[in-house]
Amino acid sequence: MSDHVYKSVELTGSSETSIEEAVQNALTKASQSIENMQWFQVTETRGNIENGTVAHWQVSIKVGFTLE
Amino acid sequence: MSDHVYKSVELTGSSETSIEEAVQNALTKASQSIENMQWFQVTETRGNIENGTVAHWQVSIKVGFTLE
Amino acid sequence: MSDHVYKSVELTGSSETSIEEAVQNALTKASQSIENMQWFQVTETRGNIENGTVAHWQVSIKVGFTLE
Amino acid sequence: MSDHVYKSVELTGSSETSIEEAVQNALTKASQSIENMQWFQVTETRGNIENGTVAHWQVSIKVGFTLE
Amino acid sequence: MSDHVYKSVELTGSSETSIEEAVQNALTKASQSIENMQWFQVTETRGNIENGTVAHWQVSIKVGFTLE
Amino acid sequence: MSDHVYKSVELTGSSETSIEEAVQNALTKASQSIENMQWFQVTETRGNIENGTVAHWQVSIKVGFTLE
Amino acid sequence: MSDHVYKSVELTGSSETSIEEAVQNALTKASQSIENMQWFQVTETRGNIENGTVAHWQVSIKVGFTLE
Amino acid sequence: MSDHVYKSVELTGSSETSIEEAVQNALTKASQSIENMQWFQVTETRGNIENGTVAHWQVSIKVGFTLE
Amino acid sequence: MSDHVYKSVELTGSSETSIEEAVQNALTKASQSIENMQWFQVTETRGNIENGTVAHWQVSIKVGFTLE
Amino acid sequence: MSDHVYKSVELTGSSETSIEEAVQNALTKASQSIENMQWFQVTETRGNIENGTVAHWQVSIKVGFTLE
Amino acid sequence: MSDHVYKSVELTGSSETSIEEAVQNALTKASQSIENMQWFQVTETRGNIENGTVAHWQVSIKVGFTLE
Amino acid sequence: MSDHVYKSVELTGSSETSIEEAVQNALTKASQSIENMQWFQVTETRGNIENGTVAHWQVSIKVGFTLE
Repeated sequence: MSDHVYKSVELTGSSETSIEEAVQNALTKASQSIENMQWFQVTETRGNIENGTVAHWQVSIKVGFTLE
Repeated sequence: MSDHVYKSVELTGSSETSIEEAVQNALTKASQSIENMQWFQVTETRGNIENGTVAHWQVSIKVGFTLE
Repeated sequence: MSDHVYKSVELTGSSETSIEEAVQNALTKASQSIENMQWFQVTETRGNIENGTVAHWQVSIKVGFTLE
Repeated sequence: MSDHVYKSVELTGSSETSIEEAVQNALTKASQSIENMQWFQVTETRGNIENGTVAHWQVSIKVGFTLE
Repeated sequence: MSDHVYKSVELTGSSETSIEEAVQNALTKASQSIENMQWFQVTETRGNIENGTVAHWQVSIKVGFTLE
Repeated sequence: MSDHVYKSVELTGSSETSIEEAVQNALTKASQSIENMQWFQVTETRGNIENGTVAHWQVSIKVGFTLE
Repeated sequence: MSDHVYKSVELTGSSETSIEEAVQNALTKASQSIENMQWFQVTETRGNIENGTVAHWQVSIKVGFTLE
Repeated sequence: MSDHVYKSVELTGSSETSIEEAVQNALTKASQSIENMQWFQVTETRGNIENGTVAHWQVSIKVGFTLE
Repeated sequence: MSDHVYKSVELTGSSETSIEEAVQNALTKASQSIENMQWFQVTETRGNIENGTVAHWQVSIKVGFTLE
Repeated sequence: MSDHVYKSVELTGSSETSIEEAVQNALTKASQSIENMQWFQVTETRGNIENGTVAHWQVSIKVGFTLE
Repeated sequence: MSDHVYKSVELTGSSETSIEEAVQNALTKASQSIENMQWFQVTETRGNIENGTVAHWQVSIKVGFTLE
Repeated sequence: MSDHVYKSVELTGSSETSIEEAVQNALTKASQSIENMQWFQVTETRGNIENGTVAHWQVSIKVGFTLE
């Protein structure tokens, strides 16, 4: 981590399939405006239900990136 | 969420395969007695181990449903 | 749980693929030195990012085993 | 509290006006099926937003009642 | 835990004597309406005081049971 | 905050009407014996219920004041 | 929540009158620079005191909005 | 709880025998200087060990009393 | 605590009778392999239930000991 | 800890220089009115900023002392 | 705090020397793009280790600033 | 973090001077028996008091190291 300063932001991604894909979807969207993303931490895992079935996984993450 | 009142209950489902399947198994069972389930939140992810291998994923969720 | 005494230790495993595989990787490594592992609880789910993509899932667990 | 046994359930009520009214709305609905409600504790205060304005206050409470 | 689905509810029992008896009193009452209770976890230990002396121990527990 | 030292105490006020009034009632009472109260933080919001209606709002606060 | 990605930011609004107005004041200010705000969650309720009276309610919220 | 204002303080009592006695010892000491103690909540249970045996149970409680 | 360095480990003991005995059982077992245990802190109190009765108290503790 | 009963209070001290000095400043002030202070625990570390520089470190502590 | 609205962001600064310097380094970097920073709160203190020695202190803070 | 598995242990170091030195003292002691220590996280900062002055800083850390 040396001499860098990091900022972290909180994002929520969703997926019909898995927790992993929901996280990746959030990162893919965020990488359009944030460079140098280094790490993430899952802060909440939720979902919505339709007819007794998980319709979307909704996963919140903190993402850390280098402040240039 | 408009004018509805919601109740939430806590369930634990299990699966030999994945966290996602353990959640769906809990919802499938609960849908036999609860109607109008709307959302869930994962509150704990545990498992039991046999011979150094994950035998079952045991995932606890809060499930919210409309009070009719 | 009867009359046993358990000890729990904290491990972090990683995987390029999934949360489930990261947990199993930690258990596989730990089973070389710890016998009688009984259960685990996920305490943190993190990861590192390369080029806007999850490079490794890093999952921390508490693992309980029987004190012989 | 003497010799009674209490059960508590988690409810979420909503109101366009205030936190207090959201709680009362949850209690009014719950009193149709639960008798002897004694106390509540606010566990979460959220809301949804429309055009930059709070549209509904959504307040979650634990409600305790005597098990007859 | 195999393939079962569990539900957990929150109860509060009381006793003039001990924490242990307060928990057992809650379970005894609950067993009139809930079958297959498997485990509990203490979530809060409180009490009321009369003349500088503990009058009742009031212990809250989460109780897990098999959903048939 | 300069060079002062602060002490904080925990109070609970109640009101039949609102959360805000319960906080003010606690402060009004406390100001009879504590001078120089500077800030508060709400730590818990509870209430008791009579006939399915909120009878009293009971709000706990930490109050900070300058140690003279 | 479908396929959107959300970002959440933390704001603190204040009001001389009520918790509800403090939240609305934060949203009104934020809506000048953030579009598509969807929900909020109260994370802290504080205030400052003058002459034993609540001078300002200061309410912190997390606000979620769609990442376009 | 009606119209009273309560203050709560944090105490730690100890006992060679039990958690219950440690709490009562704290209350007995506190009742010399505090009147109108109404309730307590256990916040921490610790102890010190001599020769592999619990030497003293040390139990911390919050105690609430009426502000006259 | 002077100039020592301490290590703490997490143990779970069980007893059919009481929380206190479950803690002591964990310490008795641990004292076979750990010297210089100084203090403990209760981190979780659980139990399993058979026929509506507490079958075993299962108490988890952190135990601190001097690193020689 | 033997047979003593302890009370703990919450203080906040400040310093332009360091976290350590802020704690000591709180203790120095408190020792004017509290005897027999035994231990402290840091509960919060904050500060205020002037022109992008830390102006004061503000450190909150719980301080335990013997109840005579 | 009067009528302002505040936003808070999360930063992590590092230093080879001290916790205080890591915080100041984060503020110095952030002051290049954020005006009107008012306060901070330490949320996490970590570090990396090389050859058994602290190589860098890594301190995470929430920083609040006025929304103009 | 690639393909390694990490274990973390909890230590408490002390110093008469500073939080930083207490952490380093814990690491120096631990490095006698643990190789490949990578990172630490501060979990608690306490101290004992003599005559109104901090006598020792006691800092607890989690230390992570590679499982070979």
